[in-house]
Amino acid sequence: MKLWDKGISIDKKIEQFTVGNDREIDIHIAKYDVIASKAHAKMLHKIGILTTIELEQLLGGLDLLANEIEAGEFVIDAQFEDVHSKIEYELTANLGDVGKKIHTARSRNDQVLVACHLYYKENLGLVREKVKTLFETLLSQAEVYKDKVLPGYTHLQVAMPSSFGLWFSAYAEQMIDDVFLIDAAIKTVDQNPLGSAAGYGSSFPIDREFTTKEMEFATLKYNVVAAQMGRGKNERTISAALGSLANTMARFAMDTCLYMSQNFGFVSFPDELTTGSSIMPHKKNPDVFELIRGKCNKIQALQTEMVLITNNLPSGYHRDFQLLKENMIAAFEEIKDILDIFNFSIQQVIVKDIDINDEKYKYLFTVDNINTLVVEGQTFREAYQKIGGQVQDGTYVPDTSKKHTHEGSIHNLCLDKIRDKFPE
Amino acid sequence: MKLWDKGISIDKKIEQFTVGNDREIDIHIAKYDVIASKAHAKMLHKIGILTTIELEQLLGGLDLLANEIEAGEFVIDAQFEDVHSKIEYELTANLGDVGKKIHTARSRNDQVLVACHLYYKENLGLVREKVKTLFETLLSQAEVYKDKVLPGYTHLQVAMPSSFGLWFSAYAEQMIDDVFLIDAAIKTVDQNPLGSAAGYGSSFPIDREFTTKEMEFATLKYNVVAAQMGRGKNERTISAALGSLANTMARFAMDTCLYMSQNFGFVSFPDELTTGSSIMPHKKNPDVFELIRGKCNKIQALQTEMVLITNNLPSGYHRDFQLLKENMIAAFEEIKDILDIFNFSIQQVIVKDIDINDEKYKYLFTVDNINTLVVEGQTFREAYQKIGGQVQDGTYVPDTSKKHTHEGSIHNLCLDKIRDKFPE
Amino acid sequence: MKLWDKGISIDKKIEQFTVGNDREIDIHIAKYDVIASKAHAKMLHKIGILTTIELEQLLGGLDLLANEIEAGEFVIDAQFEDVHSKIEYELTANLGDVGKKIHTARSRNDQVLVACHLYYKENLGLVREKVKTLFETLLSQAEVYKDKVLPGYTHLQVAMPSSFGLWFSAYAEQMIDDVFLIDAAIKTVDQNPLGSAAGYGSSFPIDREFTTKEMEFATLKYNVVAAQMGRGKNERTISAALGSLANTMARFAMDTCLYMSQNFGFVSFPDELTTGSSIMPHKKNPDVFELIRGKCNKIQALQTEMVLITNNLPSGYHRDFQLLKENMIAAFEEIKDILDIFNFSIQQVIVKDIDINDEKYKYLFTVDNINTLVVEGQTFREAYQKIGGQVQDGTYVPDTSKKHTHEGSIHNLCLDKIRDKFPE
Amino acid sequence: MKLWDKGISIDKKIEQFTVGNDREIDIHIAKYDVIASKAHAKMLHKIGILTTIELEQLLGGLDLLANEIEAGEFVIDAQFEDVHSKIEYELTANLGDVGKKIHTARSRNDQVLVACHLYYKENLGLVREKVKTLFETLLSQAEVYKDKVLPGYTHLQVAMPSSFGLWFSAYAEQMIDDVFLIDAAIKTVDQNPLGSAAGYGSSFPIDREFTTKEMEFATLKYNVVAAQMGRGKNERTISAALGSLANTMARFAMDTCLYMSQNFGFVSFPDELTTGSSIMPHKKNPDVFELIRGKCNKIQALQTEMVLITNNLPSGYHRDFQLLKENMIAAFEEIKDILDIFNFSIQQVIVKDIDINDEKYKYLFTVDNINTLVVEGQTFREAYQKIGGQVQDGTYVPDTSKKHTHEGSIHNLCLDKIRDKFPE
Repeated sequence: MKLWDKGISIDKKIEQFTVGNDREIDIHIAKYDVIASKAHAKMLHKIGILTTIELEQLLGGLDLLANEIEAGEFVIDAQFEDVHSKIEYELTANLGDVGKKIHTARSRNDQVLVACHLYYKENLGLVREKVKTLFETLLSQAEVYKDKVLPGYTHLQVAMPSSFGLWFSAYAEQMIDDVFLIDAAIKTVDQNPLGSAAGYGSSFPIDREFTTKEMEFATLKYNVVAAQMGRGKNERTISAALGSLANTMARFAMDTCLYMSQNFGFVSFPDELTTGSSIMPHKKNPDVFELIRGKCNKIQALQTEMVLITNNLPSGYHRDFQLLKENMIAAFEEIKDILDIFNFSIQQVIVKDIDINDEKYKYLFTVDNINTLVVEGQTFREAYQKIGGQVQDGTYVPDTSKKHTHEGSIHNLCLDKIRDKFPE
Repeated sequence: MKLWDKGISIDKKIEQFTVGNDREIDIHIAKYDVIASKAHAKMLHKIGILTTIELEQLLGGLDLLANEIEAGEFVIDAQFEDVHSKIEYELTANLGDVGKKIHTARSRNDQVLVACHLYYKENLGLVREKVKTLFETLLSQAEVYKDKVLPGYTHLQVAMPSSFGLWFSAYAEQMIDDVFLIDAAIKTVDQNPLGSAAGYGSSFPIDREFTTKEMEFATLKYNVVAAQMGRGKNERTISAALGSLANTMARFAMDTCLYMSQNFGFVSFPDELTTGSSIMPHKKNPDVFELIRGKCNKIQALQTEMVLITNNLPSGYHRDFQLLKENMIAAFEEIKDILDIFNFSIQQVIVKDIDINDEKYKYLFTVDNINTLVVEGQTFREAYQKIGGQVQDGTYVPDTSKKHTHEGSIHNLCLDKIRDKFPE
Repeated sequence: MKLWDKGISIDKKIEQFTVGNDREIDIHIAKYDVIASKAHAKMLHKIGILTTIELEQLLGGLDLLANEIEAGEFVIDAQFEDVHSKIEYELTANLGDVGKKIHTARSRNDQVLVACHLYYKENLGLVREKVKTLFETLLSQAEVYKDKVLPGYTHLQVAMPSSFGLWFSAYAEQMIDDVFLIDAAIKTVDQNPLGSAAGYGSSFPIDREFTTKEMEFATLKYNVVAAQMGRGKNERTISAALGSLANTMARFAMDTCLYMSQNFGFVSFPDELTTGSSIMPHKKNPDVFELIRGKCNKIQALQTEMVLITNNLPSGYHRDFQLLKENMIAAFEEIKDILDIFNFSIQQVIVKDIDINDEKYKYLFTVDNINTLVVEGQTFREAYQKIGGQVQDGTYVPDTSKKHTHEGSIHNLCLDKIRDKFPE
Repeated sequence: MKLWDKGISIDKKIEQFTVGNDREIDIHIAKYDVIASKAHAKMLHKIGILTTIELEQLLGGLDLLANEIEAGEFVIDAQFEDVHSKIEYELTANLGDVGKKIHTARSRNDQVLVACHLYYKENLGLVREKVKTLFETLLSQAEVYKDKVLPGYTHLQVAMPSSFGLWFSAYAEQMIDDVFLIDAAIKTVDQNPLGSAAGYGSSFPIDREFTTKEMEFATLKYNVVAAQMGRGKNERTISAALGSLANTMARFAMDTCLYMSQNFGFVSFPDELTTGSSIMPHKKNPDVFELIRGKCNKIQALQTEMVLITNNLPSGYHRDFQLLKENMIAAFEEIKDILDIFNFSIQQVIVKDIDINDEKYKYLFTVDNINTLVVEGQTFREAYQKIGGQVQDGTYVPDTSKKHTHEGSIHNLCLDKIRDKFPE
């Protein structure tokens, strides 16, 4: 059964090609189609298209489906091309002709679009919460390990003293920038597109302000063409936001993998978080962090896909848009997992004692030595030449006692100020 | 003269390879290096490293350079590797030893980073203003042409009635979503990174709150490692925002090119905005809009570059970051031009009268016919079958009189409400 | 059961995160793991590590598995992390200790790598065959429709006469360039990587020339580190090749969708290849070609994913590489379908008669008119000015009789020469 | 002066927007426009459009221009929009009316396209030569350092013994795969597109086989629409090939930067190839290799730009294609430099002695120990358990004496066989 069936048989292979794996993907948006359908039904009642009894029947039918979905018992059988056909079929099978009335004054495009807005909004909210949790974890770890020295590198060369406190909280503060993008994405999808129908609105006297309130959208995407153009544009924005977050986590994972190398030996993890080798019995590999990095890199690639699918297409719906959902929804499911695993794993980290007196680390303190000379009255360039000379002739002795005092420095992490910056 | 010169001669070719075209690019950030240098100098005075006289000398010297830059007379000669060396050289040449003191408690990384933050912030603001201008132009055009019917397409097939009012204002409303991303980018760069030095802070007792206020940043990037990690991350976020805006304009340009085709014939432009052909004398080509589209597509590609340069690099500065500036700054200069040209051109549009009675357009109104039957009491599916039957047997007569009443529809554009949605 | 199991329990969630959906993906490479295992076993026998009886037992066991795989009955149960563990388990369960011996002198990385080479090689061959089939179909259609005029556009403006013959065969000839890339990809994967073990080779006296011949690879990837670096690099090359082919098909699909628009009306398709609308009964939408376009655009995005996963990683295996398989294999399965559907659909095309006397098409012939004047002795610029004048004052009369004679022109398609260019 | 000038003044700003920086870029293709113009002129003479005297005049004029270009004295003044207008202007200024005749039977699109084919072909050849040089350098270095042990890593964990011989020659062999793509790109552009005119051929009886031979193209792009579709497609293929090569070099540079870190200390470079820090006097940074990596990553991003500019555009010329040249040509100039610098620098490498008895490296040899047990009769799993047990209880003693014998292994590099694989 297909909504657009005009009694013409369609070659089986073509059907499979056009339906694709919509059924599997649509399970994720079933819940939201029901929410939108309820709002739409209430609106149809308000404008006199549904009677009170019809409304109650429809709401009852939809609630039953909502329960099925919640319980994980909802299945989209092979005879349906998508979740929307399936739901309309169920309503009609259970309620008779009234079931068909739900489709009045809306189109399938409408349904896909509003369900995606609702899915995206809720899931962006979930991602944001998990980011907050990870943010707090990182700040806690920064507090715990604030006195543990870590060599700071530039150009992968030993450069200046850093600390685990600085390292953990750097990624926390970095995530605030990711939240700016997540919030931009939330604003983008927190606009009700329902009523755009096939992209040009409806001649029915529908009440879009009503459905906006009913579904708790912050506002409407007023212009129906603009609402429809959200297909692809929403995904572009969301993939930019998730990609930014993925970028932060991937770089943290890269640091972690590097620091676990025997050549650094800065951190380690319990056996539960490492894996072995099928041929090397001594290996404890950082697979979890490598997979975090790799999965985050995949998520970073997503935006290119979203752009390529929609780029240079004239305005108006194109079937290509059907393909946006699959990897977008997969990315949401993936990134929520990554955030959980990351948050769990980083709490298990074993921070090692680093022997800062090791020959290779002693030049960490040259800048501090120079600065001391400057404070004593030399120009920077003179002091730089002097310490540089000591380094070259082997007479350099590090001064490891210097305290850094400024905001955000190794001895003044400003963790509370960073915490306060996290957007409400 | 190179800041890191240790008296060792460097192979000419290597030097050219490492310096690249930094001199040309750095002209764009010279102004901001001066602003940051003044703030830094005032702060050094405040913490007692510069005397009042020294501060006045330095501010005077920097103001002279600012004037030169403003007047377009500032040149970075071949002997300097970048704008920062050049400015320090000028100060020292003019002021003697005090010129060297400006480099106390900061590093070149610091300077590049803060100058980029300032450049990005100001230019994002300029882009935002130009977006607002274009937004208003589009709403005005929507008002002017609100009664001009335009066929609405889905799948590039004639679908339902639209209007030029709907078309112009759709792109206006779409731009609001772009502004959400631009604002996220502004928040990201509106954080003072100065004081991060080489990425691990300074042992000098610098006052970062002071420079933050002095340069009018909204807040600090507290953590110095986080500040440094902004290299690449800032560009990633900005390119997402500019790319989103570019996407909106590219799609508008695509519509325009298509609508100018003789097969649509919906719009035209004065000769000044079209170009001819070296072999076809009848041609009036939409080159301006094709170049808007193409240049916007280039800008959309920028994020991949920014990500690839920085991806999977461990934390800490890498010289690769030097390469981020070039195309990022070029994109800003380009997109400001595009916004100007777009805003100018779209005001010259000649909206044609479309013969809606043409055979190919008559099915535009089938949905309105169906809806009328539904309002008269038929179910949607029955009405759909009936009109569908008329279409197939050739008896269909369009009903072009139906008014659409809901928010954001063809006859109720809600332009004021869209205008109100533009973020403050 | 995990190959690297050291008796340490692993948190369930972590396990799920690390195994991912390898089991589903690995079904596609099961066949190739068996092929490689047989070659490896024979080599182990040759160098004296397996007895003849052991070899026969292993080959028998592997053949049984090959039959199961061929029959679609092979399943990788949840207790196995991948196909390689499963196969080794089965051999050991069926054959006892000898089953374990198959893993001598190779590592799991080895197995994944060689199985991917074999899968890629075979599937690139299949893709190439399907490209050849489509190439021939396009040339046939070009022959059939060589006399049907089609307006040629530049800048989407009516420009010069073209034909369906020219259009069909253009895409055929374009595909030859795609084959150059496919052949480069085949050469890349047609090198035996087996023996690289974990990426640094083996201290066993294995015979890699032997396994190379046994598996019918054209040559070895000699250097074991180079063999291992193929992870990611192979996928990069293949995704460039598939992306190029996808690009050709996507553009053809774009033309098709445009030409199906009522505003062009150049082609149409039987109902079986179009779909309707849930609200517009008159619609016959080109969904098949839109989905070809969209799916091809997804495939074009794949290379960015492959690059991002591997970029900037130092040499040596990283677990991130596990993530390369999933979308790479999915792309192969997808593009084979697309090629079938495309080849089927394009044979159903209904080429319409285009009224070349329509007002909007008459300027198609201006260049031919100019050229006639030139042949009669005028300079090109004079003739251009003259015909241009006629166009402007409305006196222009098209000359539609001119025959184009040169190679590859509208009246001299050189289809046989194009056919001859298809690489052996 | 613009070729398409119809006497209508064009707003200055629009002109600047449309011309862009074509003049700067076109300097690179001037030489090739002259070559193609000479071939075109000879062909016009052959088919009777130019007299012998006219041909000689034109060839003389073109040779003068070729000399100017060769001498670096050729300038495209601001009054010309591109190199093609400039050359035609010069010919006409010097030779009178005959200068105008060169444009007979071709269009500007033709000229740009054929000049790009010639530029690309020559430059791909140059890149290929430089790759060959680097390939030989790497093999030489492999030979020189074949006995120097290098720890091999998997997951960035110390894994198994490798060597500098293996490392250098791995990148050499990897480059062969890059050459497969370069050769595919050469085949793609080694097809004569001249005669496609505006993309639909010409009604003049031009002889395309003649110009093909004259310009030494391997064959024709027969179909004129296919020839025109090369715009964008050529750049897509070339950027895939250059991107692949860039990927190889970027990864080599990543290894190098990592190995220069004090935590590895495997290689070093003379002072001429490292740079200092403006604040840290002890630094010797690997800027050259970081810039190789960064520039290579930019080149890898290029394909996305090429795809985005052209994707989803219907067939036929669009002005957007003008934008393809700029970064494509810049990438060629860049990658030639990178190859030179890389080849120069890698010869200066200082390979350090690595203390293989260091505690962290001793597990490099566990697999060799296991294999010895296997050769002595134990099963792999038993041996793995035994050595694993020694590792865990601290009794493990490495066996560093084992020689690897198989093809491509640490002690049998097969450098000659790798050399032989380099495509002719």
